[in-house]
Amino acid sequence: MANSVLPRSVQQLINEFARLPGVGPKSAARLTFFLLRASDTQALDLADALREMKELTQFCSTCHNITEQDPCEICTGVGRDQGVLCVVEEPLDVLAIERSRAFNGRYHVLHGAISPVEGIGPEDLKIEQLISRTDHEPFREIILATNPTLEGESTAMYIQRRLDGKGIKLTRLARGLPVGGDLEYTDEITLGRALDGRQEL
Amino acid sequence: MANSVLPRSVQQLINEFARLPGVGPKSAARLTFFLLRASDTQALDLADALREMKELTQFCSTCHNITEQDPCEICTGVGRDQGVLCVVEEPLDVLAIERSRAFNGRYHVLHGAISPVEGIGPEDLKIEQLISRTDHEPFREIILATNPTLEGESTAMYIQRRLDGKGIKLTRLARGLPVGGDLEYTDEITLGRALDGRQEL
Repeated sequence: MANSVLPRSVQQLINEFARLPGVGPKSAARLTFFLLRASDTQALDLADALREMKELTQFCSTCHNITEQDPCEICTGVGRDQGVLCVVEEPLDVLAIERSRAFNGRYHVLHGAISPVEGIGPEDLKIEQLISRTDHEPFREIILATNPTLEGESTAMYIQRRLDGKGIKLTRLARGLPVGGDLEYTDEITLGRALDGRQEL
Repeated sequence: MANSVLPRSVQQLINEFARLPGVGPKSAARLTFFLLRASDTQALDLADALREMKELTQFCSTCHNITEQDPCEICTGVGRDQGVLCVVEEPLDVLAIERSRAFNGRYHVLHGAISPVEGIGPEDLKIEQLISRTDHEPFREIILATNPTLEGESTAMYIQRRLDGKGIKLTRLARGLPVGGDLEYTDEITLGRALDGRQEL
């Protein structure tokens, strides 16, 4: 979409939108021109929200979920079971599981899954931090709630091997999740059933 | 996606993204979480681009296209034919026509088309400004390049009536098969127009 007819600042915004996942140059131009004509404040509201999100959020030093306070609200939550840990790939997965209301323990966010194809190894994930937590926190059960994909399964198996002999019960979400699907897009009832039917590894 | 688990600033950004056209709550969450983990600068770059675009751009007081200087580069362009005016609905249409390199005149951007369904009348568009330009600028031809839709056709017809008797040649973009298109997939109305407008080899 490089074109001398476009003012530099407009082209710049199109370029920035086009860097987002799933936004091509045409969509980026559409979004930009929408904001050019939208109410005066909408573009600035979005700019402020971006800046604020970046300034206010951090990763919880315990569970590595996104938070505005460290440790996060779930890690410090009174009335949450400290003996059960749910290991997920992404912060959005925490959101999905919370929405199911079928889990009341703690979380650990790996920030990805092992994927040799994409060059993501165990050292790129928060796995060492997970192992370290098991030395200091009284977990009786760890739910390996990685996605039901090849990468998610490998990651769960890797963690299972690493935690072998620690005497912690390891479980996996029940089959019922569509294989090849994505945890964060699963409806809450299915996800609740999958939590209820979790099985020991 | 309202959920107490999400930090307020994260939810705020999701809400702002979801206000954009074609971005649903799920895509808004994806974009937000992408930016949460992207390089430190990417979210701020986008925020700066938004702010800058809003601060630096305005509409050209002559042709109503988007510009950083008023009058815009096309209106002040030396070597552009001042006698031919191309009337389009949107700034993106100017971009599309410039990319074709088949036009070297001036533009007039209406900022929409007449649409009774959406409650958009002639007074909501830059039509009076167009009529006024014809009194002061020496146009010998005006190309009514509104979209080949019901709204675009109505708008062109309305402008045609308003310019009647001014002695300016009014034209419309040719209808026909899109280049690289496939005859068997062409809709019957386009095909009818293509037959009506067939040209001798």
